[in-house]
Amino acid sequence: MKKTLKLARKGRGLVSPNPLVGAVVVKAGGIVAQGYHHRYGERHAEVEAITAAREDLQGSSLYVNLEPCSHHGQQPPCVLAIVESGIRRVVVGTTDPNPKVNGRGIKYLRQHGIEVKVGVLEDSCRALNAGFSKFIKTGLPFFTLKIAQTLDGRISGPDGNSKWISSEGSRTFAHRMRAENDAILVGIGTVLNDDPQLNVRRVRGMDPYRVVVDSHLRIPLNTKLLNDSLTPKTFIATTDAADEIRGRKVMDKGVTVWSLPANCDGQVDMRALGRKLVSVGITSVLVEGGSRVFSSLLKSGLADRLAVFIAPKLLGNGLSALSDFGVSGLDKSVVLGDYKSRRVGGDILLTGTIVYPN
Amino acid sequence: MKKTLKLARKGRGLVSPNPLVGAVVVKAGGIVAQGYHHRYGERHAEVEAITAAREDLQGSSLYVNLEPCSHHGQQPPCVLAIVESGIRRVVVGTTDPNPKVNGRGIKYLRQHGIEVKVGVLEDSCRALNAGFSKFIKTGLPFFTLKIAQTLDGRISGPDGNSKWISSEGSRTFAHRMRAENDAILVGIGTVLNDDPQLNVRRVRGMDPYRVVVDSHLRIPLNTKLLNDSLTPKTFIATTDAADEIRGRKVMDKGVTVWSLPANCDGQVDMRALGRKLVSVGITSVLVEGGSRVFSSLLKSGLADRLAVFIAPKLLGNGLSALSDFGVSGLDKSVVLGDYKSRRVGGDILLTGTIVYPN
Repeated sequence: MKKTLKLARKGRGLVSPNPLVGAVVVKAGGIVAQGYHHRYGERHAEVEAITAAREDLQGSSLYVNLEPCSHHGQQPPCVLAIVESGIRRVVVGTTDPNPKVNGRGIKYLRQHGIEVKVGVLEDSCRALNAGFSKFIKTGLPFFTLKIAQTLDGRISGPDGNSKWISSEGSRTFAHRMRAENDAILVGIGTVLNDDPQLNVRRVRGMDPYRVVVDSHLRIPLNTKLLNDSLTPKTFIATTDAADEIRGRKVMDKGVTVWSLPANCDGQVDMRALGRKLVSVGITSVLVEGGSRVFSSLLKSGLADRLAVFIAPKLLGNGLSALSDFGVSGLDKSVVLGDYKSRRVGGDILLTGTIVYPN
Repeated sequence: MKKTLKLARKGRGLVSPNPLVGAVVVKAGGIVAQGYHHRYGERHAEVEAITAAREDLQGSSLYVNLEPCSHHGQQPPCVLAIVESGIRRVVVGTTDPNPKVNGRGIKYLRQHGIEVKVGVLEDSCRALNAGFSKFIKTGLPFFTLKIAQTLDGRISGPDGNSKWISSEGSRTFAHRMRAENDAILVGIGTVLNDDPQLNVRRVRGMDPYRVVVDSHLRIPLNTKLLNDSLTPKTFIATTDAADEIRGRKVMDKGVTVWSLPANCDGQVDMRALGRKLVSVGITSVLVEGGSRVFSSLLKSGLADRLAVFIAPKLLGNGLSALSDFGVSGLDKSVVLGDYKSRRVGGDILLTGTIVYPN
């Protein structure tokens, strides 16, 4: 199953809004075929593997991280190909959250005499496709907030400087997280402060899309994001408060500018942004700040997961990681469910699912 | 050595500003005598043990958590009694930081033909007498800041409520910390907000002294601290800004009121408070809040250790654990040195030594 996950990841950044899927066929203890979903609209992993096989698959076992599909989409249902191939046993990581599948694939296979085992490395398989899962259920992307803060919750010093709150090790880890998401999202404040590159550097991996929330289109024309090789993979989300002439100048740089509805504070409406993101195939987003973007995603209930690097430092002043997002009291606080903590570099990394109060 | 630590702890709250010391004499693999320092001014642990022995100590081994003293204080030097007793081997947890001793006890023993081993369970032995160690070097008590905060560094919700940020398990742990200190210290804000008891409840242990920093003597006469069995063990630190008549009313409740110098903000000067605390035999202080007290202790460089319980919650508003304590930038932040993290209850507990920038 680990092998299927590894194969599946090769489709990162190319298959969205489809899920990442890898498939391995085993016969007499050896791998006889493998495949993965390469690109949105192309063949599914199972069919890819079955087609690639150079020997008869009669009596073999198929390993796949996600339940094989049973419906006609852009591709014919995988379950048909599996039944026809002679595969006798299918081991599934997790069921497909797509309401069109959701157990129907497994049921079909069993009805056709195939032995099916479900729930192997289930947590990893589910985490891999958290973006797809949220998208298929809500039509919105999966947002992971990544915060690097001091022990007292500050993300920059009194002088606005945030280089570097967290340790080398944490920053490398954060680049790995970038490579695991379809897009990186930041607010214009972060761009003005840090002029970041928002690419994958410290590890190997594909550069995700870059998204800047810039309600009044204040992005400087000479900023790195508008002048590097990833500029065509960059989206600026603004509102109709943006100056039109400036808008054209920004677009001339080669980025895509989205004019989206504003919320009552005159800021880009996060739900509208979410829908826009999925429309271009982005289902997983790593949100890197700043405070205002974190808080709007929490306020609108869109933030799904939190990863916070806590550096063992105290500042006592400077910018807080989060500003008011509408919590009325302790019993109405947002909770980090099912969280894990680990040491990364010199810091503590806490990760967990964001659970909103009822 | 563990046994000596256990014995030593029995003197908690009674020996300050002396160190906590326990001693065990072993002969032929069995304990033949033991003792501890009971109370300030009384016999030291080593002499206590030697005196308690019912058999000849010739050829035996002495275990003691702190280096035996070599100077004449209120008691004669322990090293004399050890040499006379016939003890052949001495195992020492850690050296005595008292400049009057600091290795001289060990040297004396060795010069008199006794085999000495130093540094057994050294970290635990040193931690036990952190208060004594700081006092003997600086004349000030050892301050441990205990903070219970959310992941985003808040210690109360927008409504001022702080019950409860942290989990049951963390609160029990915090009571254990209370029992390990000579005094608990809070600011008047915490008293006004929470009307706390500041005693040891969830675990067995002696109730420490209670200290309230109340620069303008705002403490309500009906507050629990002024009306319970521990009122005689309670100190109120104020300034000459306090109303005299009110001062008398507060004292009539049975507490001690200290009128101390104020700093430039009109608040009790923390260094003056520190000296006052040691004058009544308090060398270890657990500081439980609020934000202003934490920050003044950090600002004055007096805070020694931090224990922060981080609850996996986000508030986005409410009171921050720390307010400005004069850090000018990230490179001048206060750092938690040599820190440890562990899960306590549902929270993460980080503990470490507070290291100030140069």
